[in-house]
Amino acid sequence: MSVAIVGAGPGDPELITVRGLARLRECEVLVYDRLVAEELLDEAPSDALRIARDDFKQEDVNKLLVMHGRNGRRVVRLKGGDPFVFGRGGEEVLALADAGVPFELVPGVSSIAAVPESVGIPVTHRGVSSSVTAFAANDVEGLDAAALARVPGTLVAFMGGAVVDRLAERLIEHGRPAGTPAAVISCGTTDREQVVTAPLGAIGAAARDLPTPALVVIGDVVAVREALGFADFEALRTVRRSAA
Amino acid sequence: MSVAIVGAGPGDPELITVRGLARLRECEVLVYDRLVAEELLDEAPSDALRIARDDFKQEDVNKLLVMHGRNGRRVVRLKGGDPFVFGRGGEEVLALADAGVPFELVPGVSSIAAVPESVGIPVTHRGVSSSVTAFAANDVEGLDAAALARVPGTLVAFMGGAVVDRLAERLIEHGRPAGTPAAVISCGTTDREQVVTAPLGAIGAAARDLPTPALVVIGDVVAVREALGFADFEALRTVRRSAA
Repeated sequence: MSVAIVGAGPGDPELITVRGLARLRECEVLVYDRLVAEELLDEAPSDALRIARDDFKQEDVNKLLVMHGRNGRRVVRLKGGDPFVFGRGGEEVLALADAGVPFELVPGVSSIAAVPESVGIPVTHRGVSSSVTAFAANDVEGLDAAALARVPGTLVAFMGGAVVDRLAERLIEHGRPAGTPAAVISCGTTDREQVVTAPLGAIGAAARDLPTPALVVIGDVVAVREALGFADFEALRTVRRSAA
Repeated sequence: MSVAIVGAGPGDPELITVRGLARLRECEVLVYDRLVAEELLDEAPSDALRIARDDFKQEDVNKLLVMHGRNGRRVVRLKGGDPFVFGRGGEEVLALADAGVPFELVPGVSSIAAVPESVGIPVTHRGVSSSVTAFAANDVEGLDAAALARVPGTLVAFMGGAVVDRLAERLIEHGRPAGTPAAVISCGTTDREQVVTAPLGAIGAAARDLPTPALVVIGDVVAVREALGFADFEALRTVRRSAA
């Protein structure tokens, strides 16, 4: 019928959308990212063809989607977070459009706000930050650090976990104060979630041992979490995650 | 039991999360934003107390949440988009934490990526834009236009529909080229969705008659939509929105 490009959300399986889950439950072919929760993969029909995306190069993923879509199968391409936020969903959609294969876009909850939110950090907060800039940090030396250092408001670095030390160093070199509050959140919204906070000048050392994937948040909003009182905040979040 | 701060998503009612819908279906008190889809309000139990947030000032909303939460009711605070992206969710959570009322955060699909996505614009796209900056544009004269004009990558302005003319003017004054592709999307992801695209220097005039709420997207990613071929793109999105 068509190919649905579906955002799975930030990790917690109950954060998929109602439409995304409906598409998943009726698919015949499921092409999924490694980081998507097992509980979601289990929602696809037991006889659906399951294909792990990470075994293929991007151009081969595009070809797979076109091929199964052309064959008239109900295909779900399940991607972590939102398909269009550092998700390369645009490339897959362009390939489908070029091939004349019908497609549907089902957005997902992006990590950009949901992961910081999971540890009590609002990416925007009145009187503290009225803007948020998200960027991919894996190519840390290729970043326009001068521009990023001058951006007002909150910075959110995707794929920044392994390079947080160097990222902080580059931003400080270009004028971000070393005392700016920062956080690294590993495996956000999942049962393995861990968070470390420190001033920007010390975050690299503090977060050195956190597993990836990790999101880096830089800005005064990190201090809102402290205002909530970490221990109190955790205690109050009693009903936070139920079983999927 | 507790107060759940729930993101309703960008407009389309099926874009609420699975957990958000579950909380909504079991609530006793529902405090909702005007922009939330009617279909979602109908999901709350028929005997739930329904309170329109727009009848109250923010501090009174905070008090309402604390009061009903203290009384042991299952309260859902249903907010458009994501609660922490220009949603003032942080203020409500701080009020609950200060009062010692247990709360839960349920993120939502933010308009930041889902609304552009709905009209074929990826906010990030390999080789075109590797960052996205979202900001609130309602106080257009108070914006740090010099900084925003220099930010690399995609700009997304919330609450920018009524001021797009002046916003474009200020960004151009500070160095953004007048030829930068731009789009205004009104009522994104809903049945009333409308989109206008034009170069930044002409977007104010082109979008003058679009109803609010509207999101403004500025950057080369707008041209990816053109690469998809607008007419083709719309034709291919055959299964895009089913009835809720």
